[in-house]
Amino acid sequence: MTTSTALLLADLTGVAVFAASGASAAVAKRLDLFGVVFVGVVAALGGGIFRDLVIDEVPPLAFGDWRYAVTAAVTAAAIFWLHPQFARLRTTVLVLDAAGLALFTVTGTLKALDAHVPAVGACMIGMLTAIGGGLGRDLLTGEIPVVLRREIYAVAALAGSIAVALLSAYGAATAVPLTAAAVFVFALRLVSLRRRWSAPVPALRPPRTGARGPQL
Amino acid sequence: MTTSTALLLADLTGVAVFAASGASAAVAKRLDLFGVVFVGVVAALGGGIFRDLVIDEVPPLAFGDWRYAVTAAVTAAAIFWLHPQFARLRTTVLVLDAAGLALFTVTGTLKALDAHVPAVGACMIGMLTAIGGGLGRDLLTGEIPVVLRREIYAVAALAGSIAVALLSAYGAATAVPLTAAAVFVFALRLVSLRRRWSAPVPALRPPRTGARGPQL
Amino acid sequence: MTTSTALLLADLTGVAVFAASGASAAVAKRLDLFGVVFVGVVAALGGGIFRDLVIDEVPPLAFGDWRYAVTAAVTAAAIFWLHPQFARLRTTVLVLDAAGLALFTVTGTLKALDAHVPAVGACMIGMLTAIGGGLGRDLLTGEIPVVLRREIYAVAALAGSIAVALLSAYGAATAVPLTAAAVFVFALRLVSLRRRWSAPVPALRPPRTGARGPQL
Repeated sequence: MTTSTALLLADLTGVAVFAASGASAAVAKRLDLFGVVFVGVVAALGGGIFRDLVIDEVPPLAFGDWRYAVTAAVTAAAIFWLHPQFARLRTTVLVLDAAGLALFTVTGTLKALDAHVPAVGACMIGMLTAIGGGLGRDLLTGEIPVVLRREIYAVAALAGSIAVALLSAYGAATAVPLTAAAVFVFALRLVSLRRRWSAPVPALRPPRTGARGPQL
Repeated sequence: MTTSTALLLADLTGVAVFAASGASAAVAKRLDLFGVVFVGVVAALGGGIFRDLVIDEVPPLAFGDWRYAVTAAVTAAAIFWLHPQFARLRTTVLVLDAAGLALFTVTGTLKALDAHVPAVGACMIGMLTAIGGGLGRDLLTGEIPVVLRREIYAVAALAGSIAVALLSAYGAATAVPLTAAAVFVFALRLVSLRRRWSAPVPALRPPRTGARGPQL
Repeated sequence: MTTSTALLLADLTGVAVFAASGASAAVAKRLDLFGVVFVGVVAALGGGIFRDLVIDEVPPLAFGDWRYAVTAAVTAAAIFWLHPQFARLRTTVLVLDAAGLALFTVTGTLKALDAHVPAVGACMIGMLTAIGGGLGRDLLTGEIPVVLRREIYAVAALAGSIAVALLSAYGAATAVPLTAAAVFVFALRLVSLRRRWSAPVPALRPPRTGARGPQL
């Protein structure tokens, strides 16, 4: 198996896991078969589509290579019928999801750097590649995105993308250090799940909303 | 009347119908005049803007040709004042909406194929051209998108875009077969409305949400 | 201080103000630190990212110049800890927000015109540059966008962008008239806040939603 075949397989595994997460959320909202597949595809491919739009790689890979869409759609359709069994696999799913997060972070950051995006922007794009699909999934199912509410999820992606940008700046963006960065994201995500780490929430008594609402 | 004039007229009819559907949803949510026009314009032009971004036709037609925006805005503003009369036209609106769906599906798929997007991606883009505006409308008005919940709507668009891609692959993407594809989408949508066909929904006892939430 | 330095400072002030508005909304929803920063960054940079995507300036300025992201993120993080003090600054915030609205309207419209977008499209893009971040903020926090519901906010931006397009059409898009256009947006927004002007809302008895829902 060549490196590029291995990378494609890893990428499609990430797509499948994210599609399963999107399809599960859609099943929980009682969407129909089409809705379940659609939300699954958005969860799997949304982050990559956003990445490709901002680095001007058009058409985005998700539309240019049929294996991405087919992997996402078939996985989501499978969840539609198999969701009771799938629910029992929760630990497996969380582990695979962490792997997808790690992989999309590293490849997204690298693609942005390759497209000559400066380091800060490339880190933002790498993180958005990893969490963008989940944001889309939550918006489509009427939820405030879960990555904004609790847990070390996006933060693990951001830390990984910074690691990749640093490696690249020092000319060390080769296979072994990049794999180490992916393992770091994966481990950070799993440890934070295990220990229930989460980002701090605001102190009590938040201000009223509608800063733009009331009279001057 | 030349073919291109006929196509423009058909396109603007689709824009007007989708603008009316967006404006109606906004009126029902008691948005103000600006909000009604804005949601109408998004419903009418959102799908096409997405299509043009992913095939790198910039600026998108919706910003490049003023007739699109003006048609959408004027229609939506008219609905703001005339919505009680409009509500009585429900059957007419459903028929026109099906026509808009059919037209946007065919033109969206063709534009993607012309931009050298492979067939699977072109079908996805064609369908998203047709349903994207409705997705934007529902997100802006705080609803889970209706196309994800019931009915044969997006599925009709997807079937039509596959027909267009097949015609194109066999060199038969000429006026008559393409018109037949549009009529097929239109008819499939209307028959499914009439017979209350809908996509299947998941079996009972969905798994809890938050596959990403709990402890490992 | 050169003109371009002055413009950059003005731009970053607008970014900071919009970031503060986004972060405040996120604090009110009890998002975590990451969520507060993320919503702040989207509110500050979302409109500009959309503008740059539709005029094909890639990567968008928000990813290409680190000062934008850092200004937005630092401001939003400050609000996370200082929000009780910030809430007392309501009048100041409303004034700064109006200044950001005015500035983003003028620069967004100009950039679209410079990218050869026709006048009507450039006005739409200018307005979306100014209100796009607020739309993103409200979608992420699960609200129907406030600009669609009441007040003269987007309408002030639209009026300003039309003024800029007219100035440009008559070859008068120079520093003084453009500044006057920005002051006009700023003043219109503040006066409408002070006098509680708002756009009209629909007459009673809206039609039922779901124009696409029921049987034919």
